Amino acid sequence: MNRICELFNIEYPVIQGGMVWCSGWRLATEVSNCGGLGLIGAGSMYPETLESHIRKAKEATEKPFGVNVPLLYPDTERIMEIIERLQVPVVFTSAGSPKKWTGWLKDRGIKVVHVVSSAVFAEKSEAAGVDAIVAEGFEAGGHNGREETTTLALIPAVRKATSLPLLAAGGVASGQAMLAAMILGAEGVQIGSRFAISEESSAHPEFKKLITQSGEGQTQLVLKKLAPVRLVKNAFYDLVVEAENRGVDKDELLTILGRGRAKKGIFEGDLHNGELEIGQVSASIDEVLPVKTIMRNLIAEYRIAQKAASEDSRFNF
Amino acid sequence: MNRICELFNIEYPVIQGGMVWCSGWRLATEVSNCGGLGLIGAGSMYPETLESHIRKAKEATEKPFGVNVPLLYPDTERIMEIIERLQVPVVFTSAGSPKKWTGWLKDRGIKVVHVVSSAVFAEKSEAAGVDAIVAEGFEAGGHNGREETTTLALIPAVRKATSLPLLAAGGVASGQAMLAAMILGAEGVQIGSRFAISEESSAHPEFKKLITQSGEGQTQLVLKKLAPVRLVKNAFYDLVVEAENRGVDKDELLTILGRGRAKKGIFEGDLHNGELEIGQVSASIDEVLPVKTIMRNLIAEYRIAQKAASEDSRFNF
Repeated sequence: MNRICELFNIEYPVIQGGMVWCSGWRLATEVSNCGGLGLIGAGSMYPETLESHIRKAKEATEKPFGVNVPLLYPDTERIMEIIERLQVPVVFTSAGSPKKWTGWLKDRGIKVVHVVSSAVFAEKSEAAGVDAIVAEGFEAGGHNGREETTTLALIPAVRKATSLPLLAAGGVASGQAMLAAMILGAEGVQIGSRFAISEESSAHPEFKKLITQSGEGQTQLVLKKLAPVRLVKNAFYDLVVEAENRGVDKDELLTILGRGRAKKGIFEGDLHNGELEIGQVSASIDEVLPVKTIMRNLIAEYRIAQKAASEDSRFNF
Repeated sequence: MNRICELFNIEYPVIQGGMVWCSGWRLATEVSNCGGLGLIGAGSMYPETLESHIRKAKEATEKPFGVNVPLLYPDTERIMEIIERLQVPVVFTSAGSPKKWTGWLKDRGIKVVHVVSSAVFAEKSEAAGVDAIVAEGFEAGGHNGREETTTLALIPAVRKATSLPLLAAGGVASGQAMLAAMILGAEGVQIGSRFAISEESSAHPEFKKLITQSGEGQTQLVLKKLAPVRLVKNAFYDLVVEAENRGVDKDELLTILGRGRAKKGIFEGDLHNGELEIGQVSASIDEVLPVKTIMRNLIAEYRIAQKAASEDSRFNF
């Protein structure tokens, strides 16, 4: 029995990360229809936009789906009201304290998962009463923990700190990586980058194309004086790094960052001036694929790797 | 058939990293006697010191062992002359171009392995004629690649770039992590931190004690304007970070770094002013253990994880 499959009533323990500007109803429902759990990313949506996405999702699938809610936005109360009213069954919270909303959501029969980047916050999440935990490593795209702990080091540490169902995130875009993460103690995975570069992702085609063409070393964690974020190296990135090397302060970094950079890059396709959030593992992604193919490949690779790990002579010494 | 076991004529595909101030003849030969491949770390030795360690190693084991040679030191020619004269069977080279010494060593019947942190350098190493490759991820201790690619993202990329026998390094201190790395495409592992904190390591007892007590987030990659290095957060680290936040240049960082900092910290036990090189996974190390126990645990954990991945219901959905 896999506790992630059981918790969410899904076929495969594969969660699609609720990514800003990528994860609308189309992506989320296709993942759910293919046997995983799709998440709508509320982080880039006005409350009324989110409401419309949830309504469309309910028409597009009878399978469970969820909403990812970064807790740092001022609209969180309105977003939670919509989630309650439309009876969304699952909420993933991130970028904030798990104490804030877990009880409120659980009282309403909603399953709650909190995203952490350390064992310490995994313990806090368990104490707050969450149903499961996502532990996200340094290699993940977008916002990221200050400890810079990689998935390989993080998952065993979180596994030791809590007995809750555990999802690994960061660096997972293949069935081999999924199995590896599960051997480290996870019971499933949350996948971002691979689904960001799917046909059903709402990211701009130029952004998707750039990622399929970019190789190793093309992302880096920057803006550590504000909140660390993993970005593709482009003209905006160069501007940030040049400023950071000069030792500028938070205020100057905020001015350079400005507003709406992620939208500009990921959604509008401004590859030079946009904030292009994607994970390290994007180096391995060289095709835009439909979710159906991504899911099929993932599970097939997983099963092949599982059989090899048991039977292949390479593993037996 | 495991190609790493075959290449080195060893029982388990476990290499002990040749770490400065930790990896003398005592550590290396105990690892070899326990069925792995021990490496003497030439990086912290004068040529005559290395010669003495190799001679002692030959008395302490009949099993194969090797020497790790960072190629950035001026004494490399004398070191290679000693290795040839004393007929060391295996050399791991790092921190330099694989073109420099691979041909020379191979001509003398010595097996050559090069340490890389990117797929691009793995390809260059294969072209230079090495016998195997170590791919070392961002979570590793000590000096580290500029791409900051984690082991989870790096191993599949290197596996795709070359068909050579491949060792994973960075973040591996358990049998679970070893199996995970092998599922990602490695045929064995190079382990640093866990052996640095063994009874047989020549590191100072105070350094070992500090590591057993430190937890997550206690190492960080710094000195990126010089050569990135992962260090324990101590007074010296604070000095570096404060300077980096001010945007100081290379020259000022070199002055802060001074000379002999790693020796001061790791070998002499000056925990405040020393450069304390260790990997992220050191957070999981809470005991100084003899090599024999470390190796036994590692292989036992590996076999349990291998069986679980095949049979445990968590993995079967």
